[in-house]
Amino acid sequence: MKALLIVAHGSRRTASNDEVRELTARIRELAGARFAQVDCAFLELAEPSIPDGIECCVQNGADEVVVLPYFLSAGRHVISDIPGEVEGKQQQYPDVNIHIVPYLGSAESIPELMLQLAS
Amino acid sequence: MKALLIVAHGSRRTASNDEVRELTARIRELAGARFAQVDCAFLELAEPSIPDGIECCVQNGADEVVVLPYFLSAGRHVISDIPGEVEGKQQQYPDVNIHIVPYLGSAESIPELMLQLAS
Repeated sequence: MKALLIVAHGSRRTASNDEVRELTARIRELAGARFAQVDCAFLELAEPSIPDGIECCVQNGADEVVVLPYFLSAGRHVISDIPGEVEGKQQQYPDVNIHIVPYLGSAESIPELMLQLAS
Repeated sequence: MKALLIVAHGSRRTASNDEVRELTARIRELAGARFAQVDCAFLELAEPSIPDGIECCVQNGADEVVVLPYFLSAGRHVISDIPGEVEGKQQQYPDVNIHIVPYLGSAESIPELMLQLAS
């Protein structure tokens, strides 16, 4: 069973966290059979935490958890903090394949998407 | 003459600001004749500022400046800070059409793009 965990920074502003939850719901709908579970987690300031989000996937039977950073730049959060949070759960569940895929800002189609927004 | 100004938050981390500058260069290449000028500006922590970015477009002959927020959520920066910075330049140059288009996170294709990254 394959799960997708969208990881966002988290905000003091509830509406920003809710934007992430709504995005997650749209991804869940689109995913169809590609992922049995699609949820979100937050690095800080909102719940669930990344370890709790991974825990939920594992408890639901995931043997693969794809962690997708909803971030625009490869800053400290993407390079160190998120891998650090994931590492602890990977050690706890060595039989579950937990891996981090490239962050949103690295997607090759972002420039074209930006031009569409600008037109 | 139409200019596109990509507006990012700005970071203490030079590499993050450089990521925005590289993205801007890719957008400039892709834009072709759609925009005579494509540049970036930063809300804080990096240069140029948003007013300075708009000023550069106007000095280069722009009669339309499209401001595109490179942000993921409709937080304070997108809702108040960027419009506030733009407003001052609009008052200074009433004959230039300066307008802010929807921020990156609001693009309808983001969910599909996220699924592509996850696959």
